[in-house]
Amino acid sequence: MIVTPQSAVFDEPLALDSGRELSEFTIGYETYGRLNSKADNAILVCHGLTHNAHAAGKHHPDDARPGWWDVAIGPGKPFDPDRFFVVSSNVIGGCGGSSGPSSPDPATGKPYALNFPVVTIGDMVAAQARLTDRLGIRRWRAVAGGCMGGYQVMEWMSRFPERVAAAVVITATAATSAHTLALWEVIRQTIMRDAKFNGGDYYGGDWPLAGLGLSSMVGMVIWMTREVMAQRFGRQLAGREELSYELEADFEIQAFFQRIGDNADKSFDPNSLIYLTKAMDYFDLLRGQSGLAEAFAGVDSPTLLVSYDSDWRYPSQEMDQIRLALEQVGAPVEHRVLKSSFGHGAFIYDGEGLCAVLSDFLA
Amino acid sequence: MIVTPQSAVFDEPLALDSGRELSEFTIGYETYGRLNSKADNAILVCHGLTHNAHAAGKHHPDDARPGWWDVAIGPGKPFDPDRFFVVSSNVIGGCGGSSGPSSPDPATGKPYALNFPVVTIGDMVAAQARLTDRLGIRRWRAVAGGCMGGYQVMEWMSRFPERVAAAVVITATAATSAHTLALWEVIRQTIMRDAKFNGGDYYGGDWPLAGLGLSSMVGMVIWMTREVMAQRFGRQLAGREELSYELEADFEIQAFFQRIGDNADKSFDPNSLIYLTKAMDYFDLLRGQSGLAEAFAGVDSPTLLVSYDSDWRYPSQEMDQIRLALEQVGAPVEHRVLKSSFGHGAFIYDGEGLCAVLSDFLA
Repeated sequence: MIVTPQSAVFDEPLALDSGRELSEFTIGYETYGRLNSKADNAILVCHGLTHNAHAAGKHHPDDARPGWWDVAIGPGKPFDPDRFFVVSSNVIGGCGGSSGPSSPDPATGKPYALNFPVVTIGDMVAAQARLTDRLGIRRWRAVAGGCMGGYQVMEWMSRFPERVAAAVVITATAATSAHTLALWEVIRQTIMRDAKFNGGDYYGGDWPLAGLGLSSMVGMVIWMTREVMAQRFGRQLAGREELSYELEADFEIQAFFQRIGDNADKSFDPNSLIYLTKAMDYFDLLRGQSGLAEAFAGVDSPTLLVSYDSDWRYPSQEMDQIRLALEQVGAPVEHRVLKSSFGHGAFIYDGEGLCAVLSDFLA
Repeated sequence: MIVTPQSAVFDEPLALDSGRELSEFTIGYETYGRLNSKADNAILVCHGLTHNAHAAGKHHPDDARPGWWDVAIGPGKPFDPDRFFVVSSNVIGGCGGSSGPSSPDPATGKPYALNFPVVTIGDMVAAQARLTDRLGIRRWRAVAGGCMGGYQVMEWMSRFPERVAAAVVITATAATSAHTLALWEVIRQTIMRDAKFNGGDYYGGDWPLAGLGLSSMVGMVIWMTREVMAQRFGRQLAGREELSYELEADFEIQAFFQRIGDNADKSFDPNSLIYLTKAMDYFDLLRGQSGLAEAFAGVDSPTLLVSYDSDWRYPSQEMDQIRLALEQVGAPVEHRVLKSSFGHGAFIYDGEGLCAVLSDFLA
């Protein structure tokens, strides 16, 4: 499946939760399949903490890897382009064709850098609603996503319940936990304390790639589960027979982490990583509400919730609070707790169980 | 309890596992209580991944905090100086009075920096055995420690079983896990990628304190449990009423992490952190053995093993493999799994349950 990135430019200002606005904005997106004549077969896929909307297929036949959710999107897969018109939208604040800190500020012509306004998950969804109008879609057949994508799905349910015929929320929570608040702060500080960060104004010079590489290492030591590390690497030595007794990476898992740190590239703008984690910080469906059910007032479409038994950061118990809230408002909801050793990333890296559940739900 | 740091200098070379040697070395240590005339009331306390032997009491009455294991050492506590002569020894490779990378290299008169030889947990224990001789102690009434301290206890059991009358191993494992290998690599890289690291040769100039601060943040996001973060901080805002919509720390837990990053000081030499984690990397009682029992051949003294139900990094199941191995060699062993929300650090930060178990064991 060869796909071509697309983009849509919006000239009407977008009012943001902060009180600021984007005078104009762009959304980068990809589509798989065709919108039918009734415009009722469209599925919106919301991405997690990644940098672009490339969810499935390849841009060029010789690409090393397909999009991030190729396991779920494609002919014969749950999000089947022969049945559905699947839209994957890059969020605002990102760097995959949507307006973000690397985009030119219309006021100056130079990249916004840290002058880009802080955006929320709700702002991302408000921007996606504009794209939805532009594509001629009144109501999504389904809106689906994991992690930050799941946050977006819940904002869709909360802000535009009438535009969502079905929702799929994977490995998410109703309010970002203290642990994740801490992790995002560490991730941001690894970037911002890089001497090359220069207050975010690095576009014309050296990028803070050392900090970005470190932030990827920090993320990986949290995201890859202890169990997967044991199975995949254990205490295997890194291309040697004996311990070195030197300060180099003796073990294969350490060489693997060093490669992650060394191979940061500009495809994920460090400033975007700062903005996306900040948006996740602010995600809290309980804020200003008397209870979670209030956030879901108006929802009556079916929702599928998926969590993983090994995902200690977004545990099934928290997901189950979302189930209870949806039951309180009388919405049909199903919570599936899947087994996997892959933890939070299982919806991407161990997708088989998920795909069976998704196909059932969409049928 | 006011204590005074002590040190012992050894002129005989110490042969290291690497094949190198230290031509001379020093051990920094503290003692609490008095050695009796039979020299049979001495307890050795081995420290974890910290920088010195200051385990209990204060050096000055106006010190803000006592030593790191003050909960367990002191009058009326399990390691009671009225009964026992408690010795806490800083490890070689450390920076609390023992020979390490910040010590002068006798060959040059300048700090060793990265010319200090890589040491193992076994080397640390071999050095402690010299201190044991110097103090006139033939056999320890008990050797006790958690985390890297527990590693040292197991090396004592393995190398000098006849010198250990009882052993207490807390939150440890028989072989450092792949996950911890990865974490130590990340910790080291945060330091070594600081522009001020200068190949470890920073003693005469600016220290890589930014990297050291970052490494503390990375450690804390792993060591402090999700549950404790939720209870202690939750989503409480940092001295504000409303979200800032700026790139600052909105939440108290984020301000707390920033303070950790900002307040790195020279009391923990970054090079020592590199050497201590490297020593932990190499810890593997199974290496070169047909099974774990072989590592414990010769042990016949009682051992207390303590693990915590919330310690996902050093899980009780791994500790139980040590119990099984000790049972195989016919040594009396007891494994207590304690409840605590504090995870790996519970033996320091939530010591009440531990103290009851320790007192029982020593009685």
